[in-house]
Amino acid sequence: MSDYSAPLADIRFVLDNVVDLAGLTELAPYAELDPATILGVLEENARFVEQVIAPLNQVGDTQHSQWDAGAVRTPDGFPDAYKRYVEGGWGGVPFPEVYGGGGFPWLVGIVLQEILTSANLSFSLAPLLTQGAIDMLLHHGSEEQQERYLPKMVTGEWSGTMNLTEPQAGSEVGALTTKAVPADDGTWRISGQKIFITYGEHDMADNIIHLVLARVPDAPPGTKGISCFIVPKFLLTDDGSLGARNAAECVSIEHKMGIHASPTCVMSYDGAVGYLIGEANQGMRYMFTMMNNARLSVGLQGLGLGERAYQRAVAYAHERRQGRAPGAAPGEQSLIVDLPDVRRMLLTMRALNEAMRALLYLNAECLDLANHHPDEAVRTQRAELADLLTPISKGWSTDMGVEVTSLAIQVFGGMGFIEETGVAQYYRDARIAPIYEGTNGIQAMDLVGRKLPLRGGGVITDFLAGIEATAAEVSKGGDAFGPIGPRLTEAHRTFAEATQWLMANGLADPTNALAGATPYLRMAGIVTGGWLLARSALAARARLDEGGGDRELLEQKIVTARFYCDQLLPQAAGLLPAITAGPADLNAAVL
Amino acid sequence: MSDYSAPLADIRFVLDNVVDLAGLTELAPYAELDPATILGVLEENARFVEQVIAPLNQVGDTQHSQWDAGAVRTPDGFPDAYKRYVEGGWGGVPFPEVYGGGGFPWLVGIVLQEILTSANLSFSLAPLLTQGAIDMLLHHGSEEQQERYLPKMVTGEWSGTMNLTEPQAGSEVGALTTKAVPADDGTWRISGQKIFITYGEHDMADNIIHLVLARVPDAPPGTKGISCFIVPKFLLTDDGSLGARNAAECVSIEHKMGIHASPTCVMSYDGAVGYLIGEANQGMRYMFTMMNNARLSVGLQGLGLGERAYQRAVAYAHERRQGRAPGAAPGEQSLIVDLPDVRRMLLTMRALNEAMRALLYLNAECLDLANHHPDEAVRTQRAELADLLTPISKGWSTDMGVEVTSLAIQVFGGMGFIEETGVAQYYRDARIAPIYEGTNGIQAMDLVGRKLPLRGGGVITDFLAGIEATAAEVSKGGDAFGPIGPRLTEAHRTFAEATQWLMANGLADPTNALAGATPYLRMAGIVTGGWLLARSALAARARLDEGGGDRELLEQKIVTARFYCDQLLPQAAGLLPAITAGPADLNAAVL
Repeated sequence: MSDYSAPLADIRFVLDNVVDLAGLTELAPYAELDPATILGVLEENARFVEQVIAPLNQVGDTQHSQWDAGAVRTPDGFPDAYKRYVEGGWGGVPFPEVYGGGGFPWLVGIVLQEILTSANLSFSLAPLLTQGAIDMLLHHGSEEQQERYLPKMVTGEWSGTMNLTEPQAGSEVGALTTKAVPADDGTWRISGQKIFITYGEHDMADNIIHLVLARVPDAPPGTKGISCFIVPKFLLTDDGSLGARNAAECVSIEHKMGIHASPTCVMSYDGAVGYLIGEANQGMRYMFTMMNNARLSVGLQGLGLGERAYQRAVAYAHERRQGRAPGAAPGEQSLIVDLPDVRRMLLTMRALNEAMRALLYLNAECLDLANHHPDEAVRTQRAELADLLTPISKGWSTDMGVEVTSLAIQVFGGMGFIEETGVAQYYRDARIAPIYEGTNGIQAMDLVGRKLPLRGGGVITDFLAGIEATAAEVSKGGDAFGPIGPRLTEAHRTFAEATQWLMANGLADPTNALAGATPYLRMAGIVTGGWLLARSALAARARLDEGGGDRELLEQKIVTARFYCDQLLPQAAGLLPAITAGPADLNAAVL
Repeated sequence: MSDYSAPLADIRFVLDNVVDLAGLTELAPYAELDPATILGVLEENARFVEQVIAPLNQVGDTQHSQWDAGAVRTPDGFPDAYKRYVEGGWGGVPFPEVYGGGGFPWLVGIVLQEILTSANLSFSLAPLLTQGAIDMLLHHGSEEQQERYLPKMVTGEWSGTMNLTEPQAGSEVGALTTKAVPADDGTWRISGQKIFITYGEHDMADNIIHLVLARVPDAPPGTKGISCFIVPKFLLTDDGSLGARNAAECVSIEHKMGIHASPTCVMSYDGAVGYLIGEANQGMRYMFTMMNNARLSVGLQGLGLGERAYQRAVAYAHERRQGRAPGAAPGEQSLIVDLPDVRRMLLTMRALNEAMRALLYLNAECLDLANHHPDEAVRTQRAELADLLTPISKGWSTDMGVEVTSLAIQVFGGMGFIEETGVAQYYRDARIAPIYEGTNGIQAMDLVGRKLPLRGGGVITDFLAGIEATAAEVSKGGDAFGPIGPRLTEAHRTFAEATQWLMANGLADPTNALAGATPYLRMAGIVTGGWLLARSALAARARLDEGGGDRELLEQKIVTARFYCDQLLPQAAGLLPAITAGPADLNAAVL
């Protein structure tokens, strides 16, 4: 059995109160769904993941995936668990029914992903990369490509990969040099080496559908000359069954600090048969359409590991006796959960996790509404908000994932540094998320360089107005909210000032914006978290006044929001000087 | 060869400008020394450590120390390097010449420790624990004990350990149950199990002198009933040569996230022969006399790893091309050192390292002056300041060590997560330092509970006045200091307000102080760092005006101070609400 229990009550609170799950089920594609059905699916999923996937987390860390002559053996239990994952149809939940998916909102897929990530980040990466590849084919594949590949990918029988990075082309995707040469039969021959390919080779799926970025002959330099190809590990025969092995080989896997069970492959393509997706030289544009989904999913890894780390830390704090809590009898060892400094750590973890969850689910709901709301104005507005939130979801949540898992180690004390305890793994695993799927520096530049200018600044202005409105509402809400109102009002003011400075001075000289981008992203995350927890507190208060729901849970939502807004949110203001400093001292430094 | 170069110019700047090395050499015990001699020793040490110790860091991480039937084999190269360390006399530098030491100031020992830690934290722990044991014997051992043990411990031929922790007695040392029973011959028989014993067993020294905390019969409960014993691995014959093996056995070693080469031992004492140090039941008091030294040394680990991580990150940033820096030609890949966000990371690392170094060296100088200054008033004042600074040195520097090593990973991007690169090790190694030698929560409680009340609040009041004076001085200093003056003035105001709140409300209800202790320690570290960098800037300016010194180095000291005070120091104010919130929300949380 596992030490992880999916936090369904907390999840449901967000689904009902921060986002509007019931509202989503009224959209046309989801008309046959209702919230009760969805919650039933979540419960069933939670049981499966807790029992089958979570217990493999530590064994995966210990055994690592192993490379042997081009093959990759995943840790004991992984192939069987993956088979059961496929049998359960879990990977297909948010995909269209026409390809065998569940036809559920993306938001529901995100909830499932949170649970799977908490259980086992390394395992979750196989379905996650498959999801990315499905997403790409759904948007840009030809009908024939969709019919050939999607059904098996949606079930998970075949997994997917994304092949972008090369040694000289990491953050700068445009520098890639992998070549694609046209063959006589309309297919292409792909040659080059890709690195950091997650699940580029493994023993859990029958086939692996690589999506590979490459350059066709005479392609323009940089990102404008990138094309995207389907390169299956096994080519398909005419009837769609598995045929010849393609010239796509895993030549080694990396020895990493974390996510040991997830094979990070060096892939060699040596004249491999590839099929062009869409048009040549449009690959980068296609990647952008799936970027919001992928970045949101990586942001979710911060929450997933933070949640598991929190659960472990709380459990340990209820077992471990050490020291004497205020009011304890002399000579008696207290449970450390009663020590104020331990309570601070645990409540900080909880508050950050709940802020992340609210942010990430809101971001996911935006994607659903942007795609499916009947009103075009709503679709546009939600698409814009998703664009704005995505770098915050990815950048801030992954940084907080590192912080929360580090706090778990601290709660465990010396035992936290011992590998057998298991919390060190969460911390090691968490450290990749600020790096991949666009480093957090890239996210910050995306936020200030691409997202603040959206609709001439209208998107961020609307967003700020929403925070201000919540601050005003909670300020009128009475004593139970404590200092939430004034703290959020002050945070809004600071966030607005930072935003205005960047928009004014970043336009004049982009270096101003680049220099302040990272502290601005941090501020945006802190303030957005405070805003959403304030909204949670308002909703909880309303529910309590109605007399419904789990009273303790609702009261605790208010406590969490109060703690966050009173004690963590004020840190936002401390970042303002760094955001508005400009590049002078950065440039003056001889490094 | 190694990728670490001891930063002797930066070190010397602090020795000359933040502390007063020349002044120390005028004290009676150091009258035969002069700064030039000391700098010569540092240079010689740096060469040795760079060439012999630093190259073993990664092999130690990869091989780990290995336990086999009670013996512990350290990684390849460790025993030989240790032999050369002993031959060089490096461990004895700050100890009295009468026992074979170098008779240098403690400050000089701390500089050597910084260098050794940067080179190889795991290796450095053997001399560090020996130093602690020497310290204990110097202060509390009988003359006979000193003569029997110290000469070989000062050379390092014998190493030392500190045995405090037991499974139920970690932060709460008073809960230990290891027993000491008197034997007829005046010696004692020690029985019990100790955990987390650094270098409790290994193959580098001829003997291991364990200092073991235990309870004599009828000892009072808690910390008042703890006695301290010498328990040598090999008993000594009458002539001081090695005799019978004592019943002190290493029964296993831990599998840890970091410091893999340092064996963390479970020690079993089964009627082992022990010799009482000082009086029975005074062990805890004796431990306190060496606590400042030990905690300062652990704080230094944050700096040591931060410095090495910075050097690696800067070097990589000068090699790696990716993306396009402002002003770069189109189509050209820039060195990442030219990207503003990378410059922010590197300058943040440098600024934090330099703030840590200034703090830690100042703390060390206080210990020297407290022991050796001819004026009793100065001795008292410096001892008080050392008491105040120690928890800040330990708590803040170790937290910053984690942050700086994490930034190094981020500069490396995906390569930072690959173990072969080596920066992941610094990050994993750094994570132990906030835990051991008193968790940082313990440091925070020490700061607010024991150190703020010193001399009725006079010590912290004097300290605040010093910060205020520097702020005033730098405010008058002209444009080169940029916003250092106003930022430090504001930081002083906030720090004073937090301090006053804790002293007023912590006296009324200690829970107020316990609840705010951790953010207060963080604030104290940030502000103290800013104060010392502002002092560095003033000194650099004065040197420049005199026309002397390395102009670039001096100008860069001002840049670093400006960056820190303008962009990092303001974060202090963001912590004030958490410090002054009191325990209400912590108590209201159902955890």
